[in-house]
Amino acid sequence: MKINFSKCRSVLITGANRGLGLQMVRQLLDSPNRPQKIIATARDPAAAKELQELAKSHPNVHVLPLDVTSDSSVDAAAQSVESIVGTDGLNCLINNAAINIPCELDTVTRDAMMKTYESNTVAPLFVTKAFLPLLRRAAAQGSDMGIQRAAVINVSSLLGSVQLNWGEVGSFKFYAYRASKSALNMVTRCLAVDLEAEKILCVALHPGWVRTDMGGSMAPLSKEESISSVLSVISGLTEKHHGGFVDYTGESLPW
Amino acid sequence: MKINFSKCRSVLITGANRGLGLQMVRQLLDSPNRPQKIIATARDPAAAKELQELAKSHPNVHVLPLDVTSDSSVDAAAQSVESIVGTDGLNCLINNAAINIPCELDTVTRDAMMKTYESNTVAPLFVTKAFLPLLRRAAAQGSDMGIQRAAVINVSSLLGSVQLNWGEVGSFKFYAYRASKSALNMVTRCLAVDLEAEKILCVALHPGWVRTDMGGSMAPLSKEESISSVLSVISGLTEKHHGGFVDYTGESLPW
Ligand SMILES: NC(=O)c1ccc[n+]([C@@H]2O[C@H](COP(=O)([O-])OP(=O)(O)OC[C@H]3O[C@@H](n4cnc5c(N)ncnc54)[C@H](OP(=O)(O)O)[C@@H]3O)[C@@H](O)[C@H]2O)c1
Ligand SMILES: NC(=O)c1ccc[n+]([C@@H]2O[C@H](COP(=O)([O-])OP(=O)(O)OC[C@H]3O[C@@H](n4cnc5c(N)ncnc54)[C@H](OP(=O)(O)O)[C@@H]3O)[C@@H](O)[C@H]2O)c1
Repeated sequence: MKINFSKCRSVLITGANRGLGLQMVRQLLDSPNRPQKIIATARDPAAAKELQELAKSHPNVHVLPLDVTSDSSVDAAAQSVESIVGTDGLNCLINNAAINIPCELDTVTRDAMMKTYESNTVAPLFVTKAFLPLLRRAAAQGSDMGIQRAAVINVSSLLGSVQLNWGEVGSFKFYAYRASKSALNMVTRCLAVDLEAEKILCVALHPGWVRTDMGGSMAPLSKEESISSVLSVISGLTEKHHGGFVDYTGESLPW
Repeated sequence: MKINFSKCRSVLITGANRGLGLQMVRQLLDSPNRPQKIIATARDPAAAKELQELAKSHPNVHVLPLDVTSDSSVDAAAQSVESIVGTDGLNCLINNAAINIPCELDTVTRDAMMKTYESNTVAPLFVTKAFLPLLRRAAAQGSDMGIQRAAVINVSSLLGSVQLNWGEVGSFKFYAYRASKSALNMVTRCLAVDLEAEKILCVALHPGWVRTDMGGSMAPLSKEESISSVLSVISGLTEKHHGGFVDYTGESLPW
Protein backbone atom coordinates (compact mmCIF):
# COMPACT_ATOMS: atom_id res chain seq x y z
CA MET A 1 0.00 0.00 0.00
CA LYS A 2 1.17 3.53 -0.72
CA ILE A 3 0.05 6.97 0.25
CA ASN A 4 -1.78 8.23 -2.82
CA PHE A 5 -3.97 11.30 -2.66
CA SER A 6 -3.27 12.40 -6.24
CA LYS A 7 -6.91 11.96 -7.28
CA CYS A 8 -8.19 13.52 -4.07
CA ARG A 9 -8.38 17.25 -4.60
CA SER A 10 -9.16 18.27 -1.05
CA VAL A 11 -8.78 16.91 2.46
CA LEU A 12 -10.03 18.53 5.64
CA ILE A 13 -8.59 17.50 9.02
CA THR A 14 -9.94 18.52 12.43
CA GLY A 15 -7.57 18.95 15.37
CA ALA A 16 -4.59 19.51 13.04
CA ASN A 17 -2.53 21.63 15.46
CA ARG A 18 -0.86 18.71 17.26
CA GLY A 19 -0.74 14.94 17.61
CA LEU A 20 -2.01 12.74 14.81
CA GLY A 21 -3.85 15.56 13.03
CA LEU A 22 -0.69 17.64 12.62
CA GLN A 23 1.22 14.53 11.60
CA MET A 24 -1.32 13.87 8.84
CA VAL A 25 -0.72 17.35 7.44
CA ARG A 26 3.05 16.82 7.57
CA GLN A 27 3.01 13.46 5.87
CA LEU A 28 0.49 14.46 3.24
CA LEU A 29 2.84 17.33 2.34
CA ASP A 30 5.83 14.97 2.27
CA SER A 31 4.07 12.65 -0.17
CA PRO A 32 4.72 13.03 -3.89
CA ASN A 33 1.04 12.13 -4.36
CA ARG A 34 -0.33 14.82 -2.15
CA PRO A 35 -3.85 16.24 -2.42
CA GLN A 36 -4.25 19.63 -4.13
CA LYS A 37 -5.70 21.28 -1.06
CA ILE A 38 -5.13 20.45 2.59
CA ILE A 39 -7.50 22.23 4.92
CA ALA A 40 -5.94 22.00 8.34
CA THR A 41 -8.26 23.15 11.08
CA ALA A 42 -7.52 23.94 14.71
CA ARG A 43 -9.47 25.26 17.64
CA ASP A 44 -7.02 28.15 17.99
CA PRO A 45 -4.92 28.59 14.83
CA ALA A 46 -2.98 31.53 16.30
CA ALA A 47 -1.48 29.18 18.89
CA ALA A 48 -0.75 26.46 16.32
CA LYS A 49 2.89 27.40 15.71
CA GLU A 50 4.05 24.23 13.92
CA LEU A 51 1.01 24.18 11.67
CA GLN A 52 1.50 27.86 10.79
CA GLU A 53 5.16 27.13 9.92
CA LEU A 54 4.06 24.35 7.54
CA ALA A 55 1.46 26.61 5.95
CA LYS A 56 4.02 29.37 5.36
CA SER A 57 6.11 27.16 3.10
CA HIS A 58 3.22 25.26 1.47
CA PRO A 59 0.56 27.31 -0.25
CA ASN A 60 -1.69 24.25 -0.61
CA VAL A 61 -2.22 24.19 3.17
CA HIS A 62 -5.17 26.29 4.32
CA VAL A 63 -5.36 26.86 8.04
CA LEU A 64 -8.82 27.56 9.45
CA PRO A 65 -10.27 27.96 12.94
CA LEU A 66 -12.62 25.13 13.90
CA ASP A 67 -13.87 24.23 17.35
CA VAL A 68 -15.81 21.09 16.58
CA THR A 69 -18.14 21.51 19.56
CA SER A 70 -19.36 24.95 18.47
CA ASP A 71 -22.12 25.29 15.88
CA SER A 72 -21.10 28.82 14.95
CA SER A 73 -17.48 27.80 14.48
CA VAL A 74 -18.51 24.78 12.38
CA ASP A 75 -20.79 26.91 10.21
CA ALA A 76 -18.12 29.55 9.68
CA ALA A 77 -15.58 26.88 8.71
CA ALA A 78 -18.02 25.32 6.24
CA GLN A 79 -18.44 28.74 4.57
CA SER A 80 -14.69 29.28 4.34
CA VAL A 81 -14.15 25.80 2.96
CA GLU A 82 -16.78 26.39 0.30
CA SER A 83 -14.78 29.35 -0.96
CA ILE A 84 -11.57 27.27 -0.94
CA VAL A 85 -12.88 24.17 -2.74
CA GLY A 86 -15.47 25.84 -4.98
CA THR A 87 -17.29 23.66 -7.51
CA ASP A 88 -15.00 20.69 -6.85
CA GLY A 89 -16.53 20.20 -3.42
CA LEU A 90 -14.74 18.41 -0.58
CA ASN A 91 -13.35 14.92 -1.20
CA CYS A 92 -12.17 13.79 2.19
CA LEU A 93 -13.23 14.80 5.68
CA ILE A 94 -11.14 13.43 8.52
CA ASN A 95 -12.84 13.80 11.90
CA ASN A 96 -9.72 13.47 14.03
CA ALA A 97 -10.20 15.90 16.94
CA ALA A 98 -11.06 14.22 20.22
CA ILE A 99 -10.46 14.30 23.95
CA ASN A 100 -9.80 11.68 26.60
CA ILE A 101 -10.60 12.45 30.21
CA PRO A 102 -9.04 9.48 31.97
CA CYS A 103 -11.54 7.93 34.39
CA GLU A 104 -12.28 4.56 35.88
CA LEU A 105 -15.36 3.22 37.64
CA ASP A 106 -14.47 5.00 40.87
CA THR A 107 -13.50 8.32 39.32
CA VAL A 108 -15.85 8.74 36.36
CA THR A 109 -18.25 11.71 36.63
CA ARG A 110 -21.41 12.55 34.73
CA ASP A 111 -19.62 15.63 33.48
CA ALA A 112 -16.67 13.64 32.07
CA MET A 113 -19.12 11.34 30.28
CA MET A 114 -21.07 14.25 28.78
CA LYS A 115 -18.07 16.37 27.73
CA THR A 116 -16.34 13.42 26.10
CA TYR A 117 -19.47 12.48 24.20
CA GLU A 118 -19.91 16.05 23.04
CA SER A 119 -16.38 16.20 21.58
CA ASN A 120 -15.89 12.66 20.36
CA THR A 121 -19.32 11.59 19.14
CA VAL A 122 -21.68 14.50 18.69
CA ALA A 123 -19.08 16.85 17.16
CA PRO A 124 -18.01 14.48 14.33
CA LEU A 125 -21.69 14.03 13.42
CA PHE A 126 -22.34 17.77 13.26
CA VAL A 127 -19.08 18.53 11.46
CA THR A 128 -20.09 15.91 8.89
CA LYS A 129 -23.58 17.41 8.55
CA ALA A 130 -22.07 20.86 7.97
CA PHE A 131 -19.71 19.63 5.25
CA LEU A 132 -22.26 17.31 3.63
CA PRO A 133 -23.23 19.80 0.89
CA LEU A 134 -19.56 19.99 -0.13
CA LEU A 135 -19.06 16.22 0.11
CA ARG A 136 -22.19 15.78 -2.04
CA ARG A 137 -20.85 18.24 -4.57
CA ALA A 138 -17.66 16.17 -4.87
CA ALA A 139 -19.60 12.90 -5.00
CA ALA A 140 -21.79 14.22 -7.82
CA GLN A 141 -18.73 14.28 -10.07
CA GLY A 142 -19.01 10.55 -10.51
CA SER A 143 -15.74 8.88 -9.46
CA ASP A 144 -15.65 5.42 -7.90
CA MET A 145 -16.18 5.20 -4.18
CA GLY A 146 -13.12 6.31 -2.20
CA ILE A 147 -11.19 9.50 -1.48
CA GLN A 148 -11.24 10.43 -5.17
CA ARG A 149 -15.02 10.78 -4.74
CA ALA A 150 -16.16 11.66 -1.20
CA ALA A 151 -15.28 10.09 2.13
CA VAL A 152 -15.87 10.63 5.83
CA ILE A 153 -13.13 9.14 8.00
CA ASN A 154 -14.04 9.06 11.66
CA VAL A 155 -10.94 8.52 13.76
CA SER A 156 -12.16 6.02 16.31
CA SER A 157 -10.23 3.67 18.57
CA LEU A 158 -9.74 0.02 19.37
CA LEU A 159 -10.99 1.08 22.79
CA GLY A 160 -14.35 1.74 21.10
CA SER A 161 -14.71 -1.95 20.28
CA VAL A 162 -17.15 -3.49 22.76
CA GLN A 163 -16.13 -6.97 21.66
CA LEU A 164 -12.42 -6.40 22.32
CA ASN A 165 -13.05 -4.82 25.73
CA TRP A 166 -11.95 -7.87 27.70
CA GLY A 167 -8.74 -9.44 28.98
CA GLU A 168 -5.66 -7.31 28.37
CA VAL A 169 -7.43 -4.66 26.27
CA GLY A 170 -10.02 -4.48 29.05
CA SER A 171 -7.37 -3.16 31.41
CA PHE A 172 -7.63 0.23 29.68
CA LYS A 173 -10.70 1.43 31.58
CA PHE A 174 -11.50 4.97 30.37
CA TYR A 175 -15.30 4.74 30.71
CA ALA A 176 -16.01 8.12 29.12
CA TYR A 177 -13.67 7.68 26.16
CA ARG A 178 -14.68 4.10 25.42
CA ALA A 179 -18.40 4.86 25.49
CA SER A 180 -17.89 7.89 23.22
CA LYS A 181 -15.93 5.89 20.66
CA SER A 182 -18.39 3.01 20.49
CA ALA A 183 -21.12 5.59 20.00
CA LEU A 184 -18.96 7.18 17.27
CA ASN A 185 -18.78 3.78 15.61
CA MET A 186 -22.58 3.68 15.64
CA VAL A 187 -22.79 7.21 14.22
CA THR A 188 -20.35 6.18 11.47
CA ARG A 189 -22.53 3.20 10.63
CA CYS A 190 -25.71 5.36 10.63
CA LEU A 191 -23.98 7.78 8.24
CA ALA A 192 -22.90 4.85 6.06
CA VAL A 193 -26.50 3.68 5.82
CA ASP A 194 -27.73 7.17 4.95
CA LEU A 195 -24.97 8.13 2.52
CA GLU A 196 -24.76 4.77 0.73
CA ALA A 197 -27.08 5.88 -2.07
CA GLU A 198 -24.83 8.86 -2.84
CA LYS A 199 -21.77 6.63 -2.59
CA ILE A 200 -20.15 8.79 0.06
CA LEU A 201 -17.80 6.43 1.84
CA CYS A 202 -17.95 6.35 5.66
CA VAL A 203 -15.52 4.42 7.85
CA ALA A 204 -14.33 4.28 11.43
CA LEU A 205 -10.56 4.06 11.66
CA HIS A 206 -8.28 3.06 14.56
CA PRO A 207 -4.85 4.69 14.14
CA GLY A 208 -3.03 2.33 16.51
CA TRP A 209 -1.71 3.17 19.95
CA VAL A 210 0.58 6.10 19.30
CA ARG A 211 2.94 8.32 21.28
CA THR A 212 1.02 11.62 21.33
CA ASP A 213 -0.26 13.73 24.22
CA MET A 214 -3.25 11.41 24.30
CA GLY A 215 -1.48 8.11 23.66
CA GLY A 216 1.31 8.77 26.17
CA SER A 217 4.92 7.68 26.15
CA MET A 218 4.25 3.95 26.64
CA ALA A 219 2.59 3.59 23.24
CA PRO A 220 4.40 1.29 20.79
CA LEU A 221 3.96 3.42 17.64
CA SER A 222 5.57 6.71 16.67
CA LYS A 223 3.37 9.30 14.98
CA GLU A 224 5.28 8.69 11.75
CA GLU A 225 4.66 4.93 11.86
CA SER A 226 0.96 5.34 12.62
CA ILE A 227 0.24 8.03 10.08
CA SER A 228 2.18 6.51 7.17
CA SER A 229 -0.01 3.42 7.62
CA VAL A 230 -3.17 5.41 8.24
CA LEU A 231 -2.72 7.50 5.08
CA SER A 232 -2.01 4.36 3.04
CA VAL A 233 -5.17 2.74 4.35
CA ILE A 234 -7.19 5.87 3.59
CA SER A 235 -5.66 5.98 0.08
CA GLY A 236 -6.90 2.46 -0.60
CA LEU A 237 -10.46 2.72 0.73
CA THR A 238 -13.12 1.36 -1.62
CA GLU A 239 -16.80 0.47 -1.45
CA LYS A 240 -15.73 -2.74 0.36
CA HIS A 241 -14.80 -0.66 3.40
CA HIS A 242 -18.00 1.37 3.46
CA GLY A 243 -19.63 1.21 6.90
CA GLY A 244 -16.68 -0.68 8.35
CA PHE A 245 -14.18 -0.35 11.19
CA VAL A 246 -10.55 -0.70 10.09
CA ASP A 247 -7.25 -0.27 11.85
CA TYR A 248 -4.05 1.38 10.60
CA THR A 249 -2.86 -1.90 9.06
CA GLY A 250 -6.06 -2.18 7.03
CA GLU A 251 -7.43 -5.05 9.13
CA SER A 252 -11.07 -4.87 10.04
CA LEU A 253 -11.99 -4.75 13.73
CA PRO A 254 -15.06 -6.15 15.49
CA TRP A 255 -17.52 -3.57 16.81
CA MET B 1 -37.24 -21.53 30.63
CA LYS B 2 -39.40 -20.31 33.49
CA ILE B 3 -39.65 -17.15 35.51
CA ASN B 4 -37.92 -17.98 38.77
CA PHE B 5 -36.94 -15.26 41.20
CA SER B 6 -37.42 -17.40 44.30
CA LYS B 7 -33.73 -17.19 45.23
CA CYS B 8 -33.57 -13.48 44.38
CA ARG B 9 -34.54 -11.55 47.47
CA SER B 10 -34.73 -8.10 45.88
CA VAL B 11 -35.16 -6.53 42.46
CA LEU B 12 -35.01 -2.84 41.67
CA ILE B 13 -36.51 -1.54 38.42
CA THR B 14 -36.11 1.99 37.04
CA GLY B 15 -38.91 3.56 34.98
CA ALA B 16 -41.52 1.24 36.51
CA ASN B 17 -44.50 3.57 36.09
CA ARG B 18 -45.35 2.52 32.52
CA GLY B 19 -44.24 0.45 29.56
CA LEU B 20 -41.89 -2.49 30.07
CA GLY B 21 -40.85 -1.42 33.56
CA LEU B 22 -44.44 -1.52 34.87
CA GLN B 23 -45.00 -4.80 33.04
CA MET B 24 -42.00 -6.32 34.83
CA VAL B 25 -43.52 -5.43 38.19
CA ARG B 26 -46.87 -6.90 37.15
CA GLN B 27 -45.45 -10.16 35.89
CA LEU B 28 -43.04 -10.60 38.80
CA LEU B 29 -46.07 -10.30 41.10
CA ASP B 30 -48.02 -12.80 39.00
CA SER B 31 -45.25 -15.35 39.26
CA PRO B 32 -45.42 -18.03 41.96
CA ASN B 33 -41.61 -17.65 42.17
CA ARG B 34 -41.58 -13.96 42.84
CA PRO B 35 -38.75 -12.12 44.57
CA GLN B 36 -39.28 -11.17 48.21
CA LYS B 37 -38.96 -7.45 47.54
CA ILE B 38 -39.75 -5.53 44.38
CA ILE B 39 -38.51 -1.97 44.44
CA ALA B 40 -40.40 -0.19 41.71
CA THR B 41 -39.03 3.29 41.02
CA ALA B 42 -40.54 6.11 39.02
CA ARG B 43 -39.61 9.70 38.27
CA ASP B 44 -42.92 10.86 39.74
CA PRO B 45 -44.54 8.16 41.88
CA ALA B 46 -47.54 10.36 42.69
CA ALA B 47 -48.55 10.28 39.02
CA ALA B 48 -47.90 6.52 38.69
CA LYS B 49 -51.50 5.43 39.23
CA GLU B 50 -51.23 1.82 38.02
CA LEU B 51 -48.07 1.20 39.98
CA GLN B 52 -49.65 2.64 43.12
CA GLU B 53 -52.65 0.33 42.64
CA LEU B 54 -50.36 -2.68 42.44
CA ALA B 55 -48.43 -1.57 45.51
CA LYS B 56 -51.66 -1.18 47.50
CA SER B 57 -52.52 -4.85 47.13
CA HIS B 58 -48.97 -6.21 47.31
CA PRO B 59 -46.92 -5.31 50.38
CA ASN B 60 -43.77 -6.68 48.76
CA VAL B 61 -43.81 -3.82 46.23
CA HIS B 62 -41.94 -0.72 47.41
CA VAL B 63 -42.53 2.37 45.29
CA LEU B 64 -39.76 4.98 45.38
CA PRO B 65 -39.07 8.22 43.51
CA LEU B 66 -36.08 7.99 41.18
CA ASP B 67 -35.13 10.35 38.40
CA VAL B 68 -32.16 8.52 36.94
CA THR B 69 -30.58 11.71 35.59
CA SER B 70 -30.45 13.43 38.98
CA ASP B 71 -27.61 12.70 41.41
CA SER B 72 -29.59 13.84 44.43
CA SER B 73 -32.55 11.65 43.45
CA VAL B 74 -30.26 8.66 42.86
CA ASP B 75 -28.52 9.16 46.21
CA ALA B 76 -31.81 9.49 48.07
CA ALA B 77 -33.12 6.32 46.42
CA ALA B 78 -29.96 4.42 47.35
CA GLN B 79 -30.46 5.42 51.00
CA SER B 80 -34.12 4.34 50.97
CA VAL B 81 -33.22 1.03 49.34
CA GLU B 82 -30.58 0.37 51.95
CA SER B 83 -33.23 0.58 54.64
CA ILE B 84 -35.52 -1.74 52.65
CA VAL B 85 -33.00 -4.47 51.85
CA GLY B 86 -30.80 -4.18 54.93
CA THR B 87 -28.03 -6.71 55.38
CA ASP B 88 -29.25 -8.84 52.45
CA GLY B 89 -28.16 -6.15 49.98
CA LEU B 90 -29.66 -5.81 46.49
CA ASN B 91 -29.67 -8.85 44.21
CA CYS B 92 -30.90 -7.50 40.92
CA LEU B 93 -30.77 -4.00 39.45
CA ILE B 94 -32.70 -3.51 36.21
CA ASN B 95 -31.76 -0.27 34.43
CA ASN B 96 -34.87 0.00 32.30
CA ALA B 97 -35.68 3.74 32.12
CA ALA B 98 -34.80 5.36 28.80
CA ILE B 99 -35.97 7.90 26.26
CA ASN B 100 -36.09 7.98 22.48
CA ILE B 101 -36.15 11.34 20.72
CA PRO B 102 -36.85 10.26 17.15
CA CYS B 103 -34.40 11.92 14.79
CA GLU B 104 -32.79 11.20 11.45
CA LEU B 105 -29.73 12.68 9.77
CA ASP B 106 -31.66 15.80 8.72
CA THR B 107 -33.43 16.36 12.01
CA VAL B 108 -30.94 15.27 14.68
CA THR B 109 -29.77 18.07 16.98
CA ARG B 110 -26.82 18.31 19.36
CA ASP B 111 -29.33 18.66 22.15
CA ALA B 112 -31.19 15.44 21.23
CA MET B 113 -27.87 13.59 21.15
CA MET B 114 -26.81 14.92 24.55
CA LYS B 115 -30.16 14.45 26.33
CA THR B 116 -30.53 10.90 25.08
CA TYR B 117 -27.00 10.01 26.15
CA GLU B 118 -27.62 11.51 29.57
CA SER B 119 -30.73 9.36 30.14
CA ASN B 120 -29.82 6.16 28.34
CA THR B 121 -26.08 5.79 28.92
CA VAL B 122 -24.80 8.04 31.69
CA ALA B 123 -27.77 7.48 34.00
CA PRO B 124 -27.55 3.65 34.07
CA LEU B 125 -23.84 3.96 34.91
CA PHE B 126 -24.46 6.34 37.81
CA VAL B 127 -27.47 4.40 39.08
CA THR B 128 -25.27 1.28 39.10
CA LYS B 129 -22.49 3.13 40.91
CA ALA B 130 -24.96 4.30 43.56
CA PHE B 131 -26.32 0.81 44.17
CA LEU B 132 -22.94 -0.91 44.00
CA PRO B 133 -22.46 -1.03 47.78
CA LEU B 134 -25.78 -2.88 48.07
CA LEU B 135 -25.00 -5.18 45.13
CA ARG B 136 -21.63 -5.94 46.73
CA ARG B 137 -23.33 -6.70 50.02
CA ALA B 138 -25.54 -9.26 48.26
CA ALA B 139 -22.60 -10.69 46.28
CA ALA B 140 -20.59 -11.16 49.47
CA GLN B 141 -23.13 -13.77 50.59
CA GLY B 142 -21.54 -16.24 48.25
CA SER B 143 -24.16 -17.62 45.85
CA ASP B 144 -23.32 -18.64 42.28
CA MET B 145 -23.32 -15.90 39.68
CA GLY B 146 -26.83 -14.84 38.65
CA ILE B 147 -29.81 -13.07 40.20
CA GLN B 148 -29.50 -15.14 43.37
CA ARG B 149 -26.19 -13.33 43.90
CA ALA B 150 -25.97 -9.87 42.30
CA ALA B 151 -26.76 -8.73 38.78
CA VAL B 152 -26.95 -5.52 36.74
CA ILE B 153 -29.32 -5.82 33.79
CA ASN B 154 -29.01 -2.91 31.38
CA VAL B 155 -32.01 -2.78 29.09
CA SER B 156 -30.43 -2.04 25.76
CA SER B 157 -31.78 -2.50 22.24
CA LEU B 158 -31.12 -4.32 19.01
CA LEU B 159 -30.82 -0.78 17.63
CA GLY B 160 -27.67 -0.46 19.75
CA SER B 161 -25.96 -3.18 17.72
CA VAL B 162 -23.55 -1.50 15.30
CA GLN B 163 -23.15 -4.75 13.38
CA LEU B 164 -26.90 -5.18 12.80
CA ASN B 165 -27.36 -1.56 11.70
CA TRP B 166 -27.65 -2.37 8.02
CA GLY B 167 -30.30 -3.47 5.53
CA GLU B 168 -33.78 -3.66 7.02
CA VAL B 169 -32.71 -2.97 10.61
CA GLY B 170 -30.78 0.03 9.25
CA SER B 171 -34.05 1.62 8.19
CA PHE B 172 -34.70 2.53 11.84
CA LYS B 173 -32.55 5.66 11.88
CA PHE B 174 -32.81 7.21 15.36
CA TYR B 175 -29.25 8.58 15.54
CA ALA B 176 -29.48 9.73 19.15
CA TYR B 177 -31.08 6.55 20.49
CA ARG B 178 -28.81 4.19 18.56
CA ALA B 179 -25.62 5.95 19.63
CA SER B 180 -26.78 5.99 23.27
CA LYS B 181 -27.53 2.28 23.28
CA SER B 182 -24.25 1.23 21.69
CA ALA B 183 -22.52 3.38 24.30
CA LEU B 184 -24.64 1.64 26.97
CA ASN B 185 -23.41 -1.68 25.63
CA MET B 186 -19.86 -0.43 26.10
CA VAL B 187 -20.64 0.76 29.63
CA THR B 188 -22.13 -2.67 30.38
CA ARG B 189 -18.97 -4.35 29.16
CA CYS B 190 -16.77 -1.96 31.19
CA LEU B 191 -18.82 -2.79 34.28
CA ALA B 192 -18.51 -6.50 33.50
CA VAL B 193 -14.73 -6.17 33.36
CA ASP B 194 -14.63 -4.27 36.64
CA LEU B 195 -17.17 -6.36 38.56
CA GLU B 196 -15.94 -9.75 37.33
CA ALA B 197 -13.73 -10.31 40.39
CA GLU B 198 -16.71 -9.81 42.70
CA LYS B 199 -18.84 -12.03 40.47
CA ILE B 200 -21.48 -9.36 39.99
CA LEU B 201 -23.14 -10.30 36.73
CA CYS B 202 -23.55 -7.54 34.08
CA VAL B 203 -25.49 -7.96 30.85
CA ALA B 204 -27.09 -5.88 28.14
CA LEU B 205 -30.56 -7.14 27.27
CA HIS B 206 -32.75 -6.42 24.23
CA PRO B 207 -36.44 -6.89 25.18
CA GLY B 208 -37.68 -7.22 21.58
CA TRP B 209 -39.71 -4.69 19.65
CA VAL B 210 -42.74 -4.16 21.86
CA ARG B 211 -45.99 -2.20 21.76
CA THR B 212 -45.32 0.50 24.37
CA ASP B 213 -45.27 4.30 24.14
CA MET B 214 -41.72 3.96 22.86
CA GLY B 215 -42.15 0.90 20.66
CA GLY B 216 -45.34 2.16 19.00
CA SER B 217 -48.33 0.25 17.69
CA MET B 218 -46.52 -1.43 14.78
CA ALA B 219 -44.34 -3.53 17.08
CA PRO B 220 -44.88 -7.31 16.81
CA LEU B 221 -44.73 -8.13 20.54
CA SER B 222 -47.17 -7.37 23.32
CA LYS B 223 -45.75 -6.27 26.66
CA GLU B 224 -46.85 -9.60 28.12
CA GLU B 225 -44.99 -11.59 25.44
CA SER B 226 -41.83 -9.55 25.79
CA ILE B 227 -41.68 -9.51 29.57
CA SER B 228 -42.52 -13.17 30.13
CA SER B 229 -39.50 -14.00 27.95
CA VAL B 230 -37.33 -11.25 29.44
CA LEU B 231 -37.99 -12.41 33.01
CA SER B 232 -37.28 -16.03 32.04
CA VAL B 233 -34.00 -15.00 30.47
CA ILE B 234 -33.06 -12.97 33.54
CA SER B 235 -33.99 -15.95 35.76
CA GLY B 236 -31.55 -18.15 33.87
CA LEU B 237 -28.53 -15.83 33.69
CA THR B 238 -25.25 -17.45 34.73
CA GLU B 239 -21.55 -16.62 34.51
CA LYS B 240 -21.72 -17.64 30.82
CA HIS B 241 -23.76 -14.50 30.12
CA HIS B 242 -21.48 -12.13 32.02
CA GLY B 243 -20.43 -9.20 29.81
CA GLY B 244 -22.75 -10.31 27.02
CA PHE B 245 -25.63 -8.92 24.96
CA VAL B 246 -28.70 -11.15 24.91
CA ASP B 247 -32.18 -10.75 23.53
CA TYR B 248 -35.53 -11.72 25.05
CA THR B 249 -35.28 -15.21 23.58
CA GLY B 250 -31.91 -15.77 25.24
CA GLU B 251 -29.98 -15.55 21.93
CA SER B 252 -26.80 -13.54 22.01
CA LEU B 253 -26.56 -10.50 19.75
CA PRO B 254 -23.49 -9.05 18.00
CA TRP B 255 -22.26 -5.72 19.36
N1 LIG C 1 -2.84 8.46 20.29
C1 LIG C 1 -3.40 7.28 20.35
O1 LIG C 1 -2.80 6.30 20.84
C2 LIG C 1 -4.78 7.06 19.78
C3 LIG C 1 -5.29 5.74 19.77
C4 LIG C 1 -6.55 5.51 19.24
C5 LIG C 1 -7.27 6.58 18.73
N2 LIG C 1 -6.76 7.84 18.76
C6 LIG C 1 -7.57 8.92 18.19
O2 LIG C 1 -6.80 9.65 17.27
C7 LIG C 1 -7.27 11.01 17.22
C8 LIG C 1 -6.12 11.97 17.45
O3 LIG C 1 -5.57 11.69 18.72
P1 LIG C 1 -4.15 12.28 19.22
O4 LIG C 1 -3.41 11.15 19.81
O5 LIG C 1 -3.56 13.09 18.14
O6 LIG C 1 -4.67 13.22 20.42
P2 LIG C 1 -4.04 14.59 20.99
O7 LIG C 1 -2.56 14.58 20.79
O8 LIG C 1 -4.58 14.73 22.36
O9 LIG C 1 -4.68 15.71 20.04
C9 LIG C 1 -6.06 15.92 20.08
C10 LIG C 1 -6.40 16.95 19.04
O10 LIG C 1 -7.83 17.13 19.05
C11 LIG C 1 -8.06 18.53 19.15
N3 LIG C 1 -9.36 18.85 19.76
C12 LIG C 1 -9.91 18.39 20.90
N4 LIG C 1 -11.09 18.98 21.11
C13 LIG C 1 -11.29 19.85 20.08
C14 LIG C 1 -12.34 20.73 19.74
N5 LIG C 1 -13.44 20.88 20.50
N6 LIG C 1 -12.22 21.44 18.58
C15 LIG C 1 -11.15 21.28 17.81
N7 LIG C 1 -10.12 20.49 18.09
C16 LIG C 1 -10.20 19.77 19.22
C17 LIG C 1 -6.91 19.07 19.98
O11 LIG C 1 -6.84 20.47 19.85
P3 LIG C 1 -6.34 21.44 21.07
O12 LIG C 1 -4.84 21.47 20.96
O13 LIG C 1 -7.02 22.72 20.79
O14 LIG C 1 -6.80 20.78 22.36
C18 LIG C 1 -5.77 18.32 19.33
O15 LIG C 1 -5.42 18.91 18.13
C19 LIG C 1 -8.36 11.12 18.27
O16 LIG C 1 -9.61 10.92 17.65
C20 LIG C 1 -8.06 9.95 19.19
O17 LIG C 1 -9.19 9.52 19.90
C21 LIG C 1 -5.53 8.11 19.28
N1 LIG D 1 -40.50 -0.83 23.34
C1 LIG D 1 -39.58 -1.34 22.55
O1 LIG D 1 -39.87 -1.78 21.44
C2 LIG D 1 -38.15 -1.41 22.99
C3 LIG D 1 -37.23 -2.03 22.13
C4 LIG D 1 -35.89 -2.11 22.52
C5 LIG D 1 -35.52 -1.61 23.74
N2 LIG D 1 -36.42 -0.99 24.56
C6 LIG D 1 -35.95 -0.47 25.84
O2 LIG D 1 -36.78 -0.95 26.88
C7 LIG D 1 -36.79 -0.01 27.97
C8 LIG D 1 -38.22 0.35 28.32
O3 LIG D 1 -38.83 0.91 27.17
P1 LIG D 1 -40.42 1.14 27.05
O4 LIG D 1 -40.80 0.63 25.73
O5 LIG D 1 -41.10 0.65 28.27
O6 LIG D 1 -40.43 2.75 27.00
P2 LIG D 1 -41.57 3.77 27.49
O7 LIG D 1 -42.90 3.13 27.40
O8 LIG D 1 -41.31 5.03 26.73
O9 LIG D 1 -41.20 3.98 29.04
C9 LIG D 1 -39.99 4.62 29.37
C10 LIG D 1 -39.86 4.60 30.88
O10 LIG D 1 -38.61 5.21 31.22
C11 LIG D 1 -38.87 6.21 32.19
N3 LIG D 1 -37.88 7.27 32.20
C12 LIG D 1 -37.38 8.00 31.17
N4 LIG D 1 -36.50 8.91 31.62
C13 LIG D 1 -36.45 8.77 32.96
C14 LIG D 1 -35.74 9.41 34.01
N5 LIG D 1 -34.89 10.43 33.76
N6 LIG D 1 -35.90 8.97 35.28
C15 LIG D 1 -36.74 7.95 35.56
N7 LIG D 1 -37.46 7.32 34.61
C16 LIG D 1 -37.32 7.73 33.34
C17 LIG D 1 -40.25 6.74 31.85
O11 LIG D 1 -40.76 7.47 32.93
P3 LIG D 1 -41.74 8.76 32.70
O12 LIG D 1 -43.13 8.21 32.58
O13 LIG D 1 -41.51 9.58 33.93
O14 LIG D 1 -41.29 9.44 31.42
C18 LIG D 1 -40.95 5.42 31.57
O15 LIG D 1 -41.29 4.80 32.77
C19 LIG D 1 -35.96 1.18 27.49
O16 LIG D 1 -34.64 1.04 27.95
C20 LIG D 1 -36.00 1.03 25.97
O17 LIG D 1 -34.91 1.66 25.35
C21 LIG D 1 -37.73 -0.88 24.21
